[in-house]
Amino acid sequence: MERLALFLRRLPGVGPKTAARLAHALYRMSEADARGIAHAIVDMREKTRLCPACGQITEDVPCRICGDPARDSAVLCVVEEPANAQAVERTRAFRGRYHVLHGALSPLDGIGPDQLAIEPLLARLKTGEIKEVILATNPNVKGEATALYLFRLIQPLGLRVSRIATGVPLGGDLEYADEATLARSLRGRRPLDEQTG
Amino acid sequence: MERLALFLRRLPGVGPKTAARLAHALYRMSEADARGIAHAIVDMREKTRLCPACGQITEDVPCRICGDPARDSAVLCVVEEPANAQAVERTRAFRGRYHVLHGALSPLDGIGPDQLAIEPLLARLKTGEIKEVILATNPNVKGEATALYLFRLIQPLGLRVSRIATGVPLGGDLEYADEATLARSLRGRRPLDEQTG
Repeated sequence: MERLALFLRRLPGVGPKTAARLAHALYRMSEADARGIAHAIVDMREKTRLCPACGQITEDVPCRICGDPARDSAVLCVVEEPANAQAVERTRAFRGRYHVLHGALSPLDGIGPDQLAIEPLLARLKTGEIKEVILATNPNVKGEATALYLFRLIQPLGLRVSRIATGVPLGGDLEYADEATLARSLRGRRPLDEQTG
Repeated sequence: MERLALFLRRLPGVGPKTAARLAHALYRMSEADARGIAHAIVDMREKTRLCPACGQITEDVPCRICGDPARDSAVLCVVEEPANAQAVERTRAFRGRYHVLHGALSPLDGIGPDQLAIEPLLARLKTGEIKEVILATNPNVKGEATALYLFRLIQPLGLRVSRIATGVPLGGDLEYADEATLARSLRGRRPLDEQTG
């Protein structure tokens, strides 16, 4: 029981108390359910891998998106983590393909360009199929630094490089936006006809 | 005491319990402090008015911003409420002038164009001094409808009309952005050299 709790604490957001509660829940539930959870974990680890093309978590090689001929192979959306690509995918607003960096630059944590999937990204860009790279790293310190680094690396290749918009969230109120976001929102203003079109 | 509590309930976010607590606090504090609060309320109401030019709350006519020759009179930022103009002002990212609509279009609440300061806005635009109008109404249903309405009204005058950017807030994570905001953030992506410049 204690060994299980110790292992569960390796999950994000699980401290000693939650770990003990989870371990007790796994003890009280039916044998079938407990074995089901354990088996699903092993099964997931056996069946999933990273797509060798884009770095997404997938059961198929290439992944569903890389293998879909209906997707626009001229537009590449670069994200930090597989979960970010899934977030963009849920918007149904993007029909291109993805490239997962598996992190963001963070020199203090020892994460430099070599720790990220940047070489494979450059290799993909050099095939000439991609015309636009959308840098969709998170709009925080590490993500912005990563976007700027990639921009400097990719621009000389003559590709269109764009950055997702930062601004006041939809449904939000100017009064509740932080000052830096509101300043960016003003700086990033666009002619209205473009936006409504 | 009960009469005071009833009046205090007219403040936003103040229910019966908070009103009673505030009334008791006003009873327990020093005579000078209580009279100070009452006097400050009356004083504020006597001394402030709306700037006849921009609609901001002000003690001076014209307001500090309309009267400042260093502000750029060619760029006008249109907002719903005085508090929104103050939010933009806090960013220190805007050097033009403001126009407060005193609300947003909301037909279901009986708020049409005639209930907003739209006629005075058009009168200002027709002086020829203003070259760009930034529609900084809130990025929610009413604010978006108001921006679109104003865009259609102002565009024929040949002015540049822009809308503040909607997107993932600074410091945010793509995973925690709602889908509509993330979709807008993608649609509103910009060439990176423009943004870093």
